[in-house]
Amino acid sequence: MSGVVVRNFERTPPAELAPLAERGVATVHEAIGRIGLMAPWMRPIYRGASIAGNAVTVTVAPGDNTMIHVAVELTQEGDVLVVVPTSPCEDGYFGDLLGGSLKARGVRGLILEAGCRDVRTLEEMGFPVWSKAISAQGTVKETLGDINVPVVCTGRVVEPGDAIVADDDGVLVVPRARIAEALDASAARIEKEAKSRARFAAGEVGLDVYGMREKLAAKGLTYYEDARALAEGRRS
Amino acid sequence: MSGVVVRNFERTPPAELAPLAERGVATVHEAIGRIGLMAPWMRPIYRGASIAGNAVTVTVAPGDNTMIHVAVELTQEGDVLVVVPTSPCEDGYFGDLLGGSLKARGVRGLILEAGCRDVRTLEEMGFPVWSKAISAQGTVKETLGDINVPVVCTGRVVEPGDAIVADDDGVLVVPRARIAEALDASAARIEKEAKSRARFAAGEVGLDVYGMREKLAAKGLTYYEDARALAEGRRS
Amino acid sequence: MSGVVVRNFERTPPAELAPLAERGVATVHEAIGRIGLMAPWMRPIYRGASIAGNAVTVTVAPGDNTMIHVAVELTQEGDVLVVVPTSPCEDGYFGDLLGGSLKARGVRGLILEAGCRDVRTLEEMGFPVWSKAISAQGTVKETLGDINVPVVCTGRVVEPGDAIVADDDGVLVVPRARIAEALDASAARIEKEAKSRARFAAGEVGLDVYGMREKLAAKGLTYYEDARALAEGRRS
Amino acid sequence: MSGVVVRNFERTPPAELAPLAERGVATVHEAIGRIGLMAPWMRPIYRGASIAGNAVTVTVAPGDNTMIHVAVELTQEGDVLVVVPTSPCEDGYFGDLLGGSLKARGVRGLILEAGCRDVRTLEEMGFPVWSKAISAQGTVKETLGDINVPVVCTGRVVEPGDAIVADDDGVLVVPRARIAEALDASAARIEKEAKSRARFAAGEVGLDVYGMREKLAAKGLTYYEDARALAEGRRS
Amino acid sequence: MSGVVVRNFERTPPAELAPLAERGVATVHEAIGRIGLMAPWMRPIYRGASIAGNAVTVTVAPGDNTMIHVAVELTQEGDVLVVVPTSPCEDGYFGDLLGGSLKARGVRGLILEAGCRDVRTLEEMGFPVWSKAISAQGTVKETLGDINVPVVCTGRVVEPGDAIVADDDGVLVVPRARIAEALDASAARIEKEAKSRARFAAGEVGLDVYGMREKLAAKGLTYYEDARALAEGRRS
Amino acid sequence: MSGVVVRNFERTPPAELAPLAERGVATVHEAIGRIGLMAPWMRPIYRGASIAGNAVTVTVAPGDNTMIHVAVELTQEGDVLVVVPTSPCEDGYFGDLLGGSLKARGVRGLILEAGCRDVRTLEEMGFPVWSKAISAQGTVKETLGDINVPVVCTGRVVEPGDAIVADDDGVLVVPRARIAEALDASAARIEKEAKSRARFAAGEVGLDVYGMREKLAAKGLTYYEDARALAEGRRS
Repeated sequence: MSGVVVRNFERTPPAELAPLAERGVATVHEAIGRIGLMAPWMRPIYRGASIAGNAVTVTVAPGDNTMIHVAVELTQEGDVLVVVPTSPCEDGYFGDLLGGSLKARGVRGLILEAGCRDVRTLEEMGFPVWSKAISAQGTVKETLGDINVPVVCTGRVVEPGDAIVADDDGVLVVPRARIAEALDASAARIEKEAKSRARFAAGEVGLDVYGMREKLAAKGLTYYEDARALAEGRRS
Repeated sequence: MSGVVVRNFERTPPAELAPLAERGVATVHEAIGRIGLMAPWMRPIYRGASIAGNAVTVTVAPGDNTMIHVAVELTQEGDVLVVVPTSPCEDGYFGDLLGGSLKARGVRGLILEAGCRDVRTLEEMGFPVWSKAISAQGTVKETLGDINVPVVCTGRVVEPGDAIVADDDGVLVVPRARIAEALDASAARIEKEAKSRARFAAGEVGLDVYGMREKLAAKGLTYYEDARALAEGRRS
Repeated sequence: MSGVVVRNFERTPPAELAPLAERGVATVHEAIGRIGLMAPWMRPIYRGASIAGNAVTVTVAPGDNTMIHVAVELTQEGDVLVVVPTSPCEDGYFGDLLGGSLKARGVRGLILEAGCRDVRTLEEMGFPVWSKAISAQGTVKETLGDINVPVVCTGRVVEPGDAIVADDDGVLVVPRARIAEALDASAARIEKEAKSRARFAAGEVGLDVYGMREKLAAKGLTYYEDARALAEGRRS
Repeated sequence: MSGVVVRNFERTPPAELAPLAERGVATVHEAIGRIGLMAPWMRPIYRGASIAGNAVTVTVAPGDNTMIHVAVELTQEGDVLVVVPTSPCEDGYFGDLLGGSLKARGVRGLILEAGCRDVRTLEEMGFPVWSKAISAQGTVKETLGDINVPVVCTGRVVEPGDAIVADDDGVLVVPRARIAEALDASAARIEKEAKSRARFAAGEVGLDVYGMREKLAAKGLTYYEDARALAEGRRS
Repeated sequence: MSGVVVRNFERTPPAELAPLAERGVATVHEAIGRIGLMAPWMRPIYRGASIAGNAVTVTVAPGDNTMIHVAVELTQEGDVLVVVPTSPCEDGYFGDLLGGSLKARGVRGLILEAGCRDVRTLEEMGFPVWSKAISAQGTVKETLGDINVPVVCTGRVVEPGDAIVADDDGVLVVPRARIAEALDASAARIEKEAKSRARFAAGEVGLDVYGMREKLAAKGLTYYEDARALAEGRRS
Repeated sequence: MSGVVVRNFERTPPAELAPLAERGVATVHEAIGRIGLMAPWMRPIYRGASIAGNAVTVTVAPGDNTMIHVAVELTQEGDVLVVVPTSPCEDGYFGDLLGGSLKARGVRGLILEAGCRDVRTLEEMGFPVWSKAISAQGTVKETLGDINVPVVCTGRVVEPGDAIVADDDGVLVVPRARIAEALDASAARIEKEAKSRARFAAGEVGLDVYGMREKLAAKGLTYYEDARALAEGRRS
């Protein structure tokens, strides 16, 4: 099926996704039931960026970035490019020229299961990339891949139009059908966390905030005053 | 033995440990004879922190942070939490709520042989963590572990009350019985290094500062003027 | 051949190499035909440095930094030290004393297929290191190695007098015989990239800038309006 | 969605899948256009087994094999179990008791993105497993997962009823909708390879068997008699 | 403390340990509460060996096997050598000469957190080794280490006189104080497993053998007849 | 320089190299001063083969085995193919058809810094391969590489005509200029080892066979009768 380019898919208005970026990967991930998190070795090329956007999916041959060039003109304000090689590869598929091109179109960032280069310039221009590696190794433009078909990135299925959320904690895929739920549930979670935060700030501990004490006692948690008490079997 | 919580152990007054943080992991490690260094893949979630404190040890089940919550109320000013999963796991056991809770109690930092999340907030609040990974993957609260029993973290034995020293160079365990020695020997080393530093600053090289020339000649070190001399066997 | 020290080799005047640092690893690597790039796990201990210099090559025994000390007095303004252990090792071979010593001699930086320590101080003094690991684990001074013989660093041959270029994108070896070509070709490439950059800045995409459209069509690239069109086989 | 068990799905009669096992992973993978191959670190616990069967998919919590037990009674003659932990884990989820149980039901083998134990007994009883690791580390029975929902195993989507083919070369997923095509195309490929094999056996080389010579010359392949001819630029 | 050799420690008579080898790592590990298992990347150099013996512990410098030679004459019938480098190293510390020497003394095998060589000869002579790597890279004889002091091997504490059990599933450390318990508990477990095995052999499944059904229902395990039933929310 | 094919180089008569295969990698590696050993993750696809031959070097693009086909007709009786991708790749570049083709020409084996497939058939036909991975992932035939130019394989320089020695312990490169030395020195080493072997067989230990006792005492090796003696500082 190599060489297939699907031009359009249903997008969520970027403004609707913005709260996901603000709430962050960890919160949204919890909110939707802990699904869709990419592998922890997908790391930002610089710290501090936080994005959410509509996934545009791209498959590329090993060492060949042809399809990223094909994808550029299909992107819109608020998109996030998700690029996956068909065989594992850490070459530097993406640099500052492509970064500038995408940034100018309003693309929020790039998720790249491969290598990225020109990382200093990309940081200076403020185009964030989450990648598997940083590598100056260039790529060729010979082989076709696909655009906007379902892909698997670091073990997670990504379909065009899924929401991508990414920050310093990692990269999250929210299936399109669950974006509304993610927005609601993450808002609720933020509110709930605010209450927990207030209690923590007041000096309470998680055992009380989360009501864990009884449950733990029932599971057999046993306290000893010190190592000697433990050796002698004297609980406290 | 799962579910054992030892409340107390003998602590070193935090002020006594402070010089270890100032002198740094590399110096203290040398000073005590190069023992106790954790693996180099234990990295700080942000650069620039430097801590020393009393180890509070915690074992956790894979994907379960119950025991970190149990440990919080047992911590004191000047402690460092050392958390080890019983099977390898890179989930995000620790975030900003727990970080705020520990920071409020005066805990110096966390050594976590697993994943950490909310890393930007943790950096903003100034609670340092050395971890194996950064991951938004949350954990459950179902399974017991132990607190303040000896643990092995990245191949190093840690007992409650051992001193933990950590900075950008890594994480070091100083056995409680050798803390006094570590303080004395690292002070001596700092002094000695200051002298070496002065000699280096004056342009001397290590061959002379450390008196290596004769020893190396005896081992057969041989100089050649250039590649041609080497090819022709003409020493110089 | 252990214990061989070659004092001299033909160097390129540092000022001649300076443009390579400015143009950067990715550009120079492309310019010379994509050869000589070291592995992507050679990472800078801090971000933002960009260097070019004459390679001084050093082999070291595992856990033993003797030969780095031997090398120091053989270095000159504009050199870059390339240090390779004879068996894989991540110990901390290099710290701030050696860094200060090399910096004072005008050495541009260190390429170290092993571990580095005192990274904060090295950053403060501005002596950049690209290494495989950061580790406080010290080394001994017992075993000989060689200096200024050809070495292989992360799979790349380095001969004394080759140019080393390193920045946030990685580390590149330019064979001495190709330095002039690297200077010319990278200048040409910078110029060419400036033109591409202007076209990208004006909103053009790579498909046009690089003239890819016809070639891709010939390879069978096929557009579909959306997923339904794809399912129904309606090209657009 | 944790705790969902889907009892049934459409299966392919085992006898129809048998030719895929015989033709092998490499051949079937080529035949269907090089899709669906799992990562190369999924290795057989013993060499020589070759299977094909209907995928029964199972997700498990890290360190918890509850759902494998739930899955057993849902399996049928000709199935292959595909087990994926929700967070990476190398614990030993599977041993000889479960192996005997599945073998008795006619299950062809297990694909396990985690650890396996009792490997010697499993080899003796002839129940093949492809796994990420071998580990005696046992698991608990506390947490729910899902059965017969789509999963991602080493980056490949597996749906219940997909065909799994596995042998010493690795593990392949053939989507249910393409099983017929896989059977036809692999048969055709076997036939075609037989012809190639005969030509190779007769001493021909791939350049002729695959008609590569002209194409390579056009790409610029250039022969030199020896290194001297190369240095002097004399083609031959 | 380098250079310390402790000649003797209390051993368990080899005949008493023999049942542990027969029952195997997985069973004994379960029997003592899942402690002491070494990392899964410690693999046997050949399949089929199964041993149990008294640990003789050895630390070695990276790339230096001096202390293995020192250890040989301290070994006795029924011992197992446990060798740990002080910095990670995969060199080939051990070959057939040392293997023959140890075998002649009745040593049961070697646990080596490093590389092993002469693996074919070691297999022919029947001296089993569990190691991190296979490597022909030889070692030198320059640096001291320690013998029969506590060591940490792949994250597990080993003290001289602990029982080591190793087979195709991995390597287990049983603390000396718990050997009697390990013998009793593993015997009990074998007996219990025999009963389970009989039930499994009679066609029962783990859900019944382990009485899991009610517990799982309480946790919310829910069955659906097929994917359509799941989509429509019809439980069965 | 891509697309360069050098037809000929000076070969060593295969019969002269045969003793290197018989003496084995570990012995020859020691004999020539411990140089030229490839990385330990280059493993044989089956155990028991032992080869020596003249290196024919091949570079290949990632995921492209064109140049292996080009190389076949340039091989002769007694050659060993050494294949290196220009970017890291674990695809399955080589299978049974190529294996049969090379075997028919008398090629001794393949050293492949990538993936191999059809491993069962290759074992049955007795064509040995040492590779980085086993993978069914096929390759294309689009891109040129070079043949019989110097390459770097797992960090070791290989020139056409170097001798390759490979067995279960790993893969060794002997530079052409040192083959005679390797033959002589390995013969001498075999003889010397035979004497050591006889002494070991007679029950002597390495401390005496290698005369290590005095040297170790001088370095400070200290014996203690048992742990109590050590605690009390009583040497023995």
